[in-house]
Amino acid sequence: MSLASLLILNGPNLNLLGTREPEKYGTQTLADVEALAAETAARFGWTVECRQSNHEGQLIDWIHEARGKHAGIVLNPGAYSHTSVAIRDALSAVELPVVEVHLTNIHAREEFRHHSYISGVAVAVLCGTGVQGYAYAVDRLARLGGATEQRVTG
Amino acid sequence: MSLASLLILNGPNLNLLGTREPEKYGTQTLADVEALAAETAARFGWTVECRQSNHEGQLIDWIHEARGKHAGIVLNPGAYSHTSVAIRDALSAVELPVVEVHLTNIHAREEFRHHSYISGVAVAVLCGTGVQGYAYAVDRLARLGGATEQRVTG
Amino acid sequence: MSLASLLILNGPNLNLLGTREPEKYGTQTLADVEALAAETAARFGWTVECRQSNHEGQLIDWIHEARGKHAGIVLNPGAYSHTSVAIRDALSAVELPVVEVHLTNIHAREEFRHHSYISGVAVAVLCGTGVQGYAYAVDRLARLGGATEQRVTG
Amino acid sequence: MSLASLLILNGPNLNLLGTREPEKYGTQTLADVEALAAETAARFGWTVECRQSNHEGQLIDWIHEARGKHAGIVLNPGAYSHTSVAIRDALSAVELPVVEVHLTNIHAREEFRHHSYISGVAVAVLCGTGVQGYAYAVDRLARLGGATEQRVTG
Amino acid sequence: MSLASLLILNGPNLNLLGTREPEKYGTQTLADVEALAAETAARFGWTVECRQSNHEGQLIDWIHEARGKHAGIVLNPGAYSHTSVAIRDALSAVELPVVEVHLTNIHAREEFRHHSYISGVAVAVLCGTGVQGYAYAVDRLARLGGATEQRVTG
Amino acid sequence: MSLASLLILNGPNLNLLGTREPEKYGTQTLADVEALAAETAARFGWTVECRQSNHEGQLIDWIHEARGKHAGIVLNPGAYSHTSVAIRDALSAVELPVVEVHLTNIHAREEFRHHSYISGVAVAVLCGTGVQGYAYAVDRLARLGGATEQRVTG
Amino acid sequence: MSLASLLILNGPNLNLLGTREPEKYGTQTLADVEALAAETAARFGWTVECRQSNHEGQLIDWIHEARGKHAGIVLNPGAYSHTSVAIRDALSAVELPVVEVHLTNIHAREEFRHHSYISGVAVAVLCGTGVQGYAYAVDRLARLGGATEQRVTG
Amino acid sequence: MSLASLLILNGPNLNLLGTREPEKYGTQTLADVEALAAETAARFGWTVECRQSNHEGQLIDWIHEARGKHAGIVLNPGAYSHTSVAIRDALSAVELPVVEVHLTNIHAREEFRHHSYISGVAVAVLCGTGVQGYAYAVDRLARLGGATEQRVTG
Amino acid sequence: MSLASLLILNGPNLNLLGTREPEKYGTQTLADVEALAAETAARFGWTVECRQSNHEGQLIDWIHEARGKHAGIVLNPGAYSHTSVAIRDALSAVELPVVEVHLTNIHAREEFRHHSYISGVAVAVLCGTGVQGYAYAVDRLARLGGATEQRVTG
Amino acid sequence: MSLASLLILNGPNLNLLGTREPEKYGTQTLADVEALAAETAARFGWTVECRQSNHEGQLIDWIHEARGKHAGIVLNPGAYSHTSVAIRDALSAVELPVVEVHLTNIHAREEFRHHSYISGVAVAVLCGTGVQGYAYAVDRLARLGGATEQRVTG
Amino acid sequence: MSLASLLILNGPNLNLLGTREPEKYGTQTLADVEALAAETAARFGWTVECRQSNHEGQLIDWIHEARGKHAGIVLNPGAYSHTSVAIRDALSAVELPVVEVHLTNIHAREEFRHHSYISGVAVAVLCGTGVQGYAYAVDRLARLGGATEQRVTG
Amino acid sequence: MSLASLLILNGPNLNLLGTREPEKYGTQTLADVEALAAETAARFGWTVECRQSNHEGQLIDWIHEARGKHAGIVLNPGAYSHTSVAIRDALSAVELPVVEVHLTNIHAREEFRHHSYISGVAVAVLCGTGVQGYAYAVDRLARLGGATEQRVTG
Repeated sequence: MSLASLLILNGPNLNLLGTREPEKYGTQTLADVEALAAETAARFGWTVECRQSNHEGQLIDWIHEARGKHAGIVLNPGAYSHTSVAIRDALSAVELPVVEVHLTNIHAREEFRHHSYISGVAVAVLCGTGVQGYAYAVDRLARLGGATEQRVTG
Repeated sequence: MSLASLLILNGPNLNLLGTREPEKYGTQTLADVEALAAETAARFGWTVECRQSNHEGQLIDWIHEARGKHAGIVLNPGAYSHTSVAIRDALSAVELPVVEVHLTNIHAREEFRHHSYISGVAVAVLCGTGVQGYAYAVDRLARLGGATEQRVTG
Repeated sequence: MSLASLLILNGPNLNLLGTREPEKYGTQTLADVEALAAETAARFGWTVECRQSNHEGQLIDWIHEARGKHAGIVLNPGAYSHTSVAIRDALSAVELPVVEVHLTNIHAREEFRHHSYISGVAVAVLCGTGVQGYAYAVDRLARLGGATEQRVTG
Repeated sequence: MSLASLLILNGPNLNLLGTREPEKYGTQTLADVEALAAETAARFGWTVECRQSNHEGQLIDWIHEARGKHAGIVLNPGAYSHTSVAIRDALSAVELPVVEVHLTNIHAREEFRHHSYISGVAVAVLCGTGVQGYAYAVDRLARLGGATEQRVTG
Repeated sequence: MSLASLLILNGPNLNLLGTREPEKYGTQTLADVEALAAETAARFGWTVECRQSNHEGQLIDWIHEARGKHAGIVLNPGAYSHTSVAIRDALSAVELPVVEVHLTNIHAREEFRHHSYISGVAVAVLCGTGVQGYAYAVDRLARLGGATEQRVTG
Repeated sequence: MSLASLLILNGPNLNLLGTREPEKYGTQTLADVEALAAETAARFGWTVECRQSNHEGQLIDWIHEARGKHAGIVLNPGAYSHTSVAIRDALSAVELPVVEVHLTNIHAREEFRHHSYISGVAVAVLCGTGVQGYAYAVDRLARLGGATEQRVTG
Repeated sequence: MSLASLLILNGPNLNLLGTREPEKYGTQTLADVEALAAETAARFGWTVECRQSNHEGQLIDWIHEARGKHAGIVLNPGAYSHTSVAIRDALSAVELPVVEVHLTNIHAREEFRHHSYISGVAVAVLCGTGVQGYAYAVDRLARLGGATEQRVTG
Repeated sequence: MSLASLLILNGPNLNLLGTREPEKYGTQTLADVEALAAETAARFGWTVECRQSNHEGQLIDWIHEARGKHAGIVLNPGAYSHTSVAIRDALSAVELPVVEVHLTNIHAREEFRHHSYISGVAVAVLCGTGVQGYAYAVDRLARLGGATEQRVTG
Repeated sequence: MSLASLLILNGPNLNLLGTREPEKYGTQTLADVEALAAETAARFGWTVECRQSNHEGQLIDWIHEARGKHAGIVLNPGAYSHTSVAIRDALSAVELPVVEVHLTNIHAREEFRHHSYISGVAVAVLCGTGVQGYAYAVDRLARLGGATEQRVTG
Repeated sequence: MSLASLLILNGPNLNLLGTREPEKYGTQTLADVEALAAETAARFGWTVECRQSNHEGQLIDWIHEARGKHAGIVLNPGAYSHTSVAIRDALSAVELPVVEVHLTNIHAREEFRHHSYISGVAVAVLCGTGVQGYAYAVDRLARLGGATEQRVTG
Repeated sequence: MSLASLLILNGPNLNLLGTREPEKYGTQTLADVEALAAETAARFGWTVECRQSNHEGQLIDWIHEARGKHAGIVLNPGAYSHTSVAIRDALSAVELPVVEVHLTNIHAREEFRHHSYISGVAVAVLCGTGVQGYAYAVDRLARLGGATEQRVTG
Repeated sequence: MSLASLLILNGPNLNLLGTREPEKYGTQTLADVEALAAETAARFGWTVECRQSNHEGQLIDWIHEARGKHAGIVLNPGAYSHTSVAIRDALSAVELPVVEVHLTNIHAREEFRHHSYISGVAVAVLCGTGVQGYAYAVDRLARLGGATEQRVTG
């Protein structure tokens, strides 16, 4: 696959990032996260497209559109992780590699957050890695796509 | 009820039909499915209205609008089968007969696909019948509505 | 497979059809059901063989005998759906396509009727389709076997 | 219903009564049990017909035949209590009052014997009453059928 | 044990018998039940002592007092069946044979009524036998205590 | 029913109200709660009778006595919510409308407090409404009983 | 917080109120409910903003917008109560007091309606209170916000 | 806290100690147990007050009265361990340290005895320590209360 | 016990051995299995009687007849392992040592095959040992019966 | 058994005692614990041998070696309580009385700490007794071994 | 694979064989077991290497070393059967055929012994076969490895 | 904490990396993994110490020793993830930040691999990230420790 672009997809409530429960989610905003993803992709000569929605159906629509357009998806499904079989199916359908990211360690929170429908169709799952997790996810997908890090020298 | 029309409603990811995982879902498209439904209805002198959405709320809105307009609903709820109490409630509220259809045999797939919230309020459930299931569903609802098959002779 | 015949197999208590709890199962008898199955098969130029037993072991024996004789099995396993691993194994062993049929929607009845051991080895499951379900099942298996509907013209 | 007869039906392994694990089931034989049932029925001017089989299907057949012939059924389903939905359905279908009898107190035995599919469709359940339970069951059904005890005086 | 007396113990809400939900519990009162128990005991030359309380602790106190005074206990624990380990322990402690009685068939009611802590320490469990169940229970305990029915001749 | 009175019934540990864990239950006492209930009832021209006990059996006795005396029951069953089938049965037996009240939101506390046996037989359940919940409950029952608020004008 | 306004938020299918299953939900419409909420708020000198949607994502968007605009939220989440972790998270994020309202007593309905994801983050939960529950909820939130009832005298 | 007294509270059936199932509970009576507790307390210059009841409500009443009167509670809740949330709540309310004692090792008995509602609010749990457990419990609470053992020398 | 004979009993679908799913069950037929059993028994100077049936009731009948005729039973219960309490009871009743044999390793197959009702009353359980398992089972039972291997020399 | 010695065995992480999470485990070290055990044993004229390991296998080896050398074992299995069937088996094998000790009240901690495989084979279980629990355990075992406390007089 | 050697691996507590609970495990020692294994292997011209450890890690090390050295492993994992995913993984990693052996019938013992993590990766599981099971296991693995029994003639 | 070193700890079977099931775990060896970790740490001017063991106790010992020596732990607990409460406790005790790493996506494997005892005490969990996951983990811990990436310029 010669595509050199990733879809960075954020689910419900992540638009509030940086303003919502900062002791749990930190003070960086969604814009910061997206900038970090873009910057990491750039190390590999790749680009990113960033989207956020609180609507399950909207997320599914965007996943469908990613086919033929992106080499993979970095997805923070937020609370839909625990309830959405439909997003899982959308991911299966488009057959793109997905890295699931959670800012917090969901395994150290309420019982009902320990299971994610998405994890079973992801290539990797990162949780508790904070904002930095988006960088790792982009790194992982770029390498999977055959890219190599382009260290700029002085 | 003197209505002679059915709502053919398809849920999340079914817009990808024919292009997604063909070894599982076959090569026929959503348009083919809708044509088959229309053709089957025509045998009884009935018509169909076809809708598809990836949005749970949109599906609910359409179900509400079916009252007084259609004699029944053929519904393939896709992944929302397993998670949507809201669609179940919408179906209960409009008090129309519903036939639930699944292209694949969901009982031979992952455990979490074995339970459907919709089945408890449907008059019939068909699964693993492929595209042909839409024809059976239309047939079932037309007969329930008092229609009789109109075999055209040569 | 050039066989053009189906086994129509009915399990425990279905001999009472039409006389037992008519508000739940309707007034058509087992003979009516078998006639409908035969008639549907005839549309494809196929024939059916009909059997009913209350004995689990007898049902297994008949399934074994179907090999090399029938192109598929329409099975209403009745209450054995929920308890018989042995019938499931018999079906696996003979490697014929099976369509499981239930007159009522078992998902809208008691909890212990929601699970069927048979569904996991069937190609399709129809429930709540009443007597008409046998017609759909025959239709499904005939098409799977490569038959085409032979509309007789006037 | 003017029938004055009961079916006394014993399930698997009860043919061994009196010879099998006497410390658990006592020394009285199936013939003794049947004699006691007959004698109790006679007090009400009623008769009994006694049957035993190890075959689930045979028991179902006999239950079907009881319609129009008996006023009720005394059933010791033995181990089929815990596994047979088919016998439950047969009992529902014939719409006769059933009293379920167990020689031992199944609630003081293994966990898997605590649940009986039959109990949900029985009018009464007696367990741990030994052979005498058949007398109570006949008494119960005769009274339900409107019979009155006919005390013979000297 | 040469005692020829039984304790007839009724638990919570049974004081309302005959006035409460008659379609479920019938129209006979607690006094009728106690008279039937006394009359049945009299057939064997035995007597009964009757008690009812809505207080779990009171029931336990009476069970304790039964030691050395009664040959057995007929207990309708009512709703305490499902929740009282303490009554179970009291019964174990006094080492008297107990027959548990329920007017209705608790297995055909709500799920939470299907399990009884008392059943595991009873010699017999009767349910769905209505008021007549007290007669069977007295009969059972009297026979266990070595009594024989004294048929009065004319 | 022309009764214009309600039973205000408080279960175990509610006698400690105002002195026990005030950060959880507030500083108002049981007397305050009862005064608020009386005052709310007075708006409708109704009266209340207030009772509290730590004894399950005592609560049942009072529920029995409410028949023919009160138009409904406001019940804070405290911890017996989670364990008492007997109180549930008493409420069913007297056939009076019941509103269940909890000072705290039991769904935000320990898992074992999430289920209440009482809720299934109540007409309404209020929790987390603090002392004010008693006013809402009285309001609800008075309206159900056909009363209308009597706004006193100046 | 000096805000004197509440968001009245109704979830899926509540637009049908008054026309859907009136024996279960009554004959009052959503407009009636909203009028009652407004009227109750007016007693405290407060106002309300009313919204209804069948779309989970839309409800989340409105919850986000409530920050800095309303003093609290009255939420009838309808069927999303049982399936939406995302709405729960939205409510946690905006840190406004929420009162959850259900027209019917969900604990006396199907098992799957007994659990609500919302209850754990609500300050109070009212169910089975019918339309009147909205008045109680407004009352509760207004008092929590420091408002006092302004009884107009004649 | 300068109180130098403990409440020794024994629950249901413990009045039978020494006479009930001695192979399980030993031959020492409740009086022996209370004497041992008093003697152990005396080593620290403390006193004890001893109470036993089979009534859950009575135990709760006594727990309430312990506030301001005792420095802690030694509680053998007997069978109420497994069923009483109300006693748990009473203990939480009075905020005294509690040591839960069981004569036998409840973990080596029936499954339903493995869980105790009391343990979650106790400071310590002793089981299988026989009568001696009361001495350990008094020792534990006296030391927690700042007492020191007063070894009398010759 | 001086009997020198074993019953080799095969349950449902084992008549298909060698022809059914050979990649799972191998190519040896039931006749081969029975020959191996006979040959192994002969090493000890013992004989075997071989039976197969798809009928649960028939298997029970044969187990009953084994008393006084055979020294033990080699039983491959096939799918009845997972569902038949009745066969378990028959085995308990006849009090003969039983070795349960499965050709495949049932623990490496579907979840519902992991539990066998038979294992609890068997002296040994062999699975995944293929046809050879019958030889081990005969060997085990012959040794248990006091037989010694009779190595024939040249 | 005339042995007058006990094995004091501490499992994983207990070497950190006094330095690890002192708010949970206190400030006394493992050496302090062992000194207290020795001192308590000395009161009875007994001695102790103390061992600690983080290795499950090492603990098993030491338990084996205790046979014929010690009269009993005081075991704090630490986290192996919840996961080691092997230590349980070792304890069963050596047939020595064991008292299980936990510094904290494991029933008031995470769910997965509530079950201990060891408790089922221990004679007593002490938890939440802090360091003092070792003294109680030694006391319990010495008395079980027939020792009597030797109060030294002045 | 031309290797003609097997690893005979015994897990925790099996060093006590013959001395521990002989009524359950018999009187033969581990040395006897190993001799029988060697002798059985010799019939095929094969040899065995025998190891026992109570340390899970040690067993894993030995499993790793078996690659390239042995043709298969006879493993009695003792109590680690029920708790060790690590041993399961070690067996998967070395890709040698494994026969799991248990002296007793673990399915007739405590519930927690019914599941073995090892069974899912074994080719065969033998339990309740006593010491003789090692002979069957060696026989099974030798035949799988292509060896043939070498009957020595006179 | 001014420590600039990390412990890289690998659990059971990871010594086989690169040689074991390469289609699942890849072809890189443990040495490669450790080199990558060292190299990543070097970017921050940090160092690593690498350890691997198949012994649970050994891993616990090394975790204990990490206190005061390392700034954090990168732990791949292998199969001990699913069974070791003891390792969890060791990690809690030393109070160092831990990142849990799994080469494969454990959520897409067997059910029993979905739960990890370690995750609840880790700051982050990475799975399905292959060997690269160690680099992310080192990166995460170094940043948490206040280090900054030192990009070397040309």
